[in-house]
Amino acid sequence: MMLFILRNDSSTLREKIKESSASYKFLDLYGKKLALVWPDEEAEKINDDSIEMKVKTKKPYILASNEWKKEPTKVSVKDVEIGGEKIVVAAGPCAVESEEQVETVAKAVRRAGASLLRGGAFKPRTSPYSFQGLGEGGLKILRKVSDEVGLPIVTEIMDARDLPLFKQYDIDMLQIGARNAQNFTLLKEVGKFGKPVLLKRGMANTVEEWLQSAEYLLSEGNGNVVLCERGIRTFEKATRFTLDIGGMVAAKMMTHLPMCADPSHPAGKRELVHSLALASVAAGADMLIIEVHPNPEKALSDSEQQLTPESFEVLMNRIKALANALGRSA
Amino acid sequence: MMLFILRNDSSTLREKIKESSASYKFLDLYGKKLALVWPDEEAEKINDDSIEMKVKTKKPYILASNEWKKEPTKVSVKDVEIGGEKIVVAAGPCAVESEEQVETVAKAVRRAGASLLRGGAFKPRTSPYSFQGLGEGGLKILRKVSDEVGLPIVTEIMDARDLPLFKQYDIDMLQIGARNAQNFTLLKEVGKFGKPVLLKRGMANTVEEWLQSAEYLLSEGNGNVVLCERGIRTFEKATRFTLDIGGMVAAKMMTHLPMCADPSHPAGKRELVHSLALASVAAGADMLIIEVHPNPEKALSDSEQQLTPESFEVLMNRIKALANALGRSA
Amino acid sequence: MMLFILRNDSSTLREKIKESSASYKFLDLYGKKLALVWPDEEAEKINDDSIEMKVKTKKPYILASNEWKKEPTKVSVKDVEIGGEKIVVAAGPCAVESEEQVETVAKAVRRAGASLLRGGAFKPRTSPYSFQGLGEGGLKILRKVSDEVGLPIVTEIMDARDLPLFKQYDIDMLQIGARNAQNFTLLKEVGKFGKPVLLKRGMANTVEEWLQSAEYLLSEGNGNVVLCERGIRTFEKATRFTLDIGGMVAAKMMTHLPMCADPSHPAGKRELVHSLALASVAAGADMLIIEVHPNPEKALSDSEQQLTPESFEVLMNRIKALANALGRSA
Amino acid sequence: MMLFILRNDSSTLREKIKESSASYKFLDLYGKKLALVWPDEEAEKINDDSIEMKVKTKKPYILASNEWKKEPTKVSVKDVEIGGEKIVVAAGPCAVESEEQVETVAKAVRRAGASLLRGGAFKPRTSPYSFQGLGEGGLKILRKVSDEVGLPIVTEIMDARDLPLFKQYDIDMLQIGARNAQNFTLLKEVGKFGKPVLLKRGMANTVEEWLQSAEYLLSEGNGNVVLCERGIRTFEKATRFTLDIGGMVAAKMMTHLPMCADPSHPAGKRELVHSLALASVAAGADMLIIEVHPNPEKALSDSEQQLTPESFEVLMNRIKALANALGRSA
Repeated sequence: MMLFILRNDSSTLREKIKESSASYKFLDLYGKKLALVWPDEEAEKINDDSIEMKVKTKKPYILASNEWKKEPTKVSVKDVEIGGEKIVVAAGPCAVESEEQVETVAKAVRRAGASLLRGGAFKPRTSPYSFQGLGEGGLKILRKVSDEVGLPIVTEIMDARDLPLFKQYDIDMLQIGARNAQNFTLLKEVGKFGKPVLLKRGMANTVEEWLQSAEYLLSEGNGNVVLCERGIRTFEKATRFTLDIGGMVAAKMMTHLPMCADPSHPAGKRELVHSLALASVAAGADMLIIEVHPNPEKALSDSEQQLTPESFEVLMNRIKALANALGRSA
Repeated sequence: MMLFILRNDSSTLREKIKESSASYKFLDLYGKKLALVWPDEEAEKINDDSIEMKVKTKKPYILASNEWKKEPTKVSVKDVEIGGEKIVVAAGPCAVESEEQVETVAKAVRRAGASLLRGGAFKPRTSPYSFQGLGEGGLKILRKVSDEVGLPIVTEIMDARDLPLFKQYDIDMLQIGARNAQNFTLLKEVGKFGKPVLLKRGMANTVEEWLQSAEYLLSEGNGNVVLCERGIRTFEKATRFTLDIGGMVAAKMMTHLPMCADPSHPAGKRELVHSLALASVAAGADMLIIEVHPNPEKALSDSEQQLTPESFEVLMNRIKALANALGRSA
Repeated sequence: MMLFILRNDSSTLREKIKESSASYKFLDLYGKKLALVWPDEEAEKINDDSIEMKVKTKKPYILASNEWKKEPTKVSVKDVEIGGEKIVVAAGPCAVESEEQVETVAKAVRRAGASLLRGGAFKPRTSPYSFQGLGEGGLKILRKVSDEVGLPIVTEIMDARDLPLFKQYDIDMLQIGARNAQNFTLLKEVGKFGKPVLLKRGMANTVEEWLQSAEYLLSEGNGNVVLCERGIRTFEKATRFTLDIGGMVAAKMMTHLPMCADPSHPAGKRELVHSLALASVAAGADMLIIEVHPNPEKALSDSEQQLTPESFEVLMNRIKALANALGRSA
Repeated sequence: MMLFILRNDSSTLREKIKESSASYKFLDLYGKKLALVWPDEEAEKINDDSIEMKVKTKKPYILASNEWKKEPTKVSVKDVEIGGEKIVVAAGPCAVESEEQVETVAKAVRRAGASLLRGGAFKPRTSPYSFQGLGEGGLKILRKVSDEVGLPIVTEIMDARDLPLFKQYDIDMLQIGARNAQNFTLLKEVGKFGKPVLLKRGMANTVEEWLQSAEYLLSEGNGNVVLCERGIRTFEKATRFTLDIGGMVAAKMMTHLPMCADPSHPAGKRELVHSLALASVAAGADMLIIEVHPNPEKALSDSEQQLTPESFEVLMNRIKALANALGRSA
């Protein structure tokens, strides 16, 4: 696999590539004109003045790699910048249940220092008999509360057929969940859609596979991708999943994309969320996504891992102190 | 969760359930009228003459469970019966590459004793730069060769938006792959579509989660589901995945659905496929799905794990001998 | 790492090696004079007429590898040969509880076709408050019943300090348990002790690490080693451990040592033991080790996975039928 | 299982217990007279004035549990207190190679703020051909440098037969390695030996099993136990092991014993050690154990994960800043 970084779009180069027996893809990414050409033997034969640099990799991903793009990518969700000095916290309920619920939480988390509002309208549930989310109604509530409270939204998309709804309600950031982390048709469509994406790691995906899933998004020209570690499946059952902080750090060394950690899902229990959130920040996470519910005991899903607004506020203060000690802010 | 097995459809029962505060679902399955009602407290209050039996479960699935349906389910794919005395073998290439390729393999595997033709037209690939399958063209080839050679087809569906194509080419059995094992919107749509389904276990799914994925299909009224163990993700890298034969046996003790094993994907290497296939049969698999390619070295995907037609014939003979020793046939 | 296979012991070679800056080890194994010499750069410089062949490997084990010893090793435990055409079954209780118990089981399993008697005198238990075995008393019972019934014994050693007892009671085959699979001081001592060894795979050991543990035994000159797959730790909890049949087959392709499978520990439940035993045989196991108790419900350990003598007899008959179908016997 | 906390040693109670059909164990721990009695039915029948409190548990461990001992245990290694407000750092080379090497590192890590000196004299190595440590010579060097530099020592014991050497060189803290975490005979002997213990979690042990291994030490009357998380085996290979920070936090919620984290082994690579160390501190670790080598590239073992003294100093400064932000010191 070779990446040609181009000085300019060049029809002569396009011709040369098309005439070769190489596979190829042209795209614009991060303000650069790029061409992906493979296999290497063919790519090496192609030369043209428009080629500024050829980057060759043995890795199974290249656009997501920091081999060609050294500076860290900053992803903007409206006025919120992810990947900079400030650690961005997205907070809100696991599932959107009602306007009142979302509004209460949104105001509380905003007050405590969250920058984004999270909440599920479409919920992937292991059992067909569990609450599956409010669907379009949930998006509507999120949009309304977001406009009112002033926090951009991140919410999950499970099916490419719902993209028109995500457009209609102008959803600010689309989350791809762990169970869809290798739903390649969804990845392609969300890549084309173009809005910022929070891409969760599949619970059995290696770091390398996770970056290849990101590559699906980037190769459609969408570079606004934040990677989110949310726990992997291991033999240990004292926690719901094993938050792979080492994997997150390893990924950060391999990519230019910002890293998010989700301490709520692996914790499974409220008491563990604080420690995992702080550990993620200390390890270098650029973003956290945390479940907060006005009344966790009555939540329609994941009731045991959602924080109360009060507990979230305590956590935010600890995150801020920690961020300062690390030379960042939150 | 309670399952009401009904003597007959009864509008009075429907009324009672609707008036209660219970959640519910009516469906026809295996020639029975059924109602699912939950939670238990509410379901217990509902009584009606039309109810033949109430089955209560603490498991997170019920339709897939053998608590209410003791006799094993037999799934018919055209004239091929899966789950009976005969061990059914589906064979064919990993990916459909050309009509000639499929035809050559189909004839060879038929001669050797396969009952179904497998082959991927839509291929889920970890990398966006890998061969993604011929798509509709692949379905067309499969249909044509199937009609010619007389083997029903099983092939993977990755996106519900492709269902019209699966209808158009009258695909006999739809495979849901490991990476989509918890793609719940796809499961629902394939459940409604009604054709027989081969449901692979996700590489990080527990047996219980696998049965819940089957429950998504069954709760849409589609009982023609075969469960397929294809290897789980573990720390061991001497094989590509760890074929969980114990998990397959455990599943068989929990469900009435037939069990399939895929020895090709976990093996990763040709040399291991025979042993894993034989082990699966000895452990009680009702079906095997095996990758066979006329020229494995030149295959566009998974070249290292596809058998040659000759090797497949040797394997079929060993499977037949083993099946006989177990009081079955193949 | 290089292995020199020698024509004869040669003092000039010994001199050359000692004078070099290489690390080395001389040993007799399988009737051959051998020298291990490393690193490769140094080993390559050494030449002598006594060297029949130099075998170079990049693997982290060599004596256990089939790169230098192509023919499969047969391990003799008294008159029982493991690794030949016949599948050898060791059976008996998890723990030795009383002479009567062991005698009853021993007679029953012998009648059914077992060739070896298993039973634990020293028991590794997760909890300090669980029954830890009868210790020396257990060895005494095993010896007595073995002599009476005519089945050689295989029993676990947990501590090198107990070797004199194993010598005193002339234990026929020493088992190294999964929890001691990387207890390297124990491996070395048992290697020196010289009796046949049944080496279990650690529950988190890769196939490669397992072969390196065997290398500890072989490099002390003890080539009578049988490798035993007993299940690995994975996320799946429907079975106690995941019997890694693919790992056993992969190991068999890498080594000349015979392979044993333990279907009892991974099963955890009696109902699964049959299927896992048959699967192991079909995959090519040379030996099985199965827990049988005269009254499993009253067993002092692992009561849920021990077979009754009656169930064991049924299993033996199925194993024999399967073995025949595979061109072997049992 | 029941724990009787006694007002005083009472011969009448001892009599009652001995006459019952219960199993039991008397011991002194943390200045308390205790009796363990089981099963519960028998323990409930026993009453005596000397019993201050009966603590009943359903967990498979009790002495290690915080159900009976609410206040956190502080373990003193000479004048170093582990489990208090200060985060204790043990640092030093993976393996003791020479007096000069250890002395150089000891002085450097002391200067940077380490409180304990680590270094392996007995090395558990996967391959029999790897450097196995200097043995007694290593203990001698550690003792000498420790006395000179003023840092107490923590070093690994692999075999109970070496305890006299650990006594002779007056080793301050004994480490039990991951591969011996379920070497129950070693655990018992080290429990009896009485010196403070650093108990690593086995790479495939659940948190519950880890606490049961600690229970082996405590039930011999040795309460000076620090638990050390060092990474578990998972499918992910981007790091050497998966540091299970969630498991460490979960354990901390279940026990009164202090928690240590080893960021070096799971990292595998130097670049990851800092992030994992900081994450562990943020998650609540009371102690860290970090590999530092004067010249990592030339190290005889684990060369890729050992820090230089300079890098260690940078890390210590970051740890101190983080500790302050958390209301602790380092």
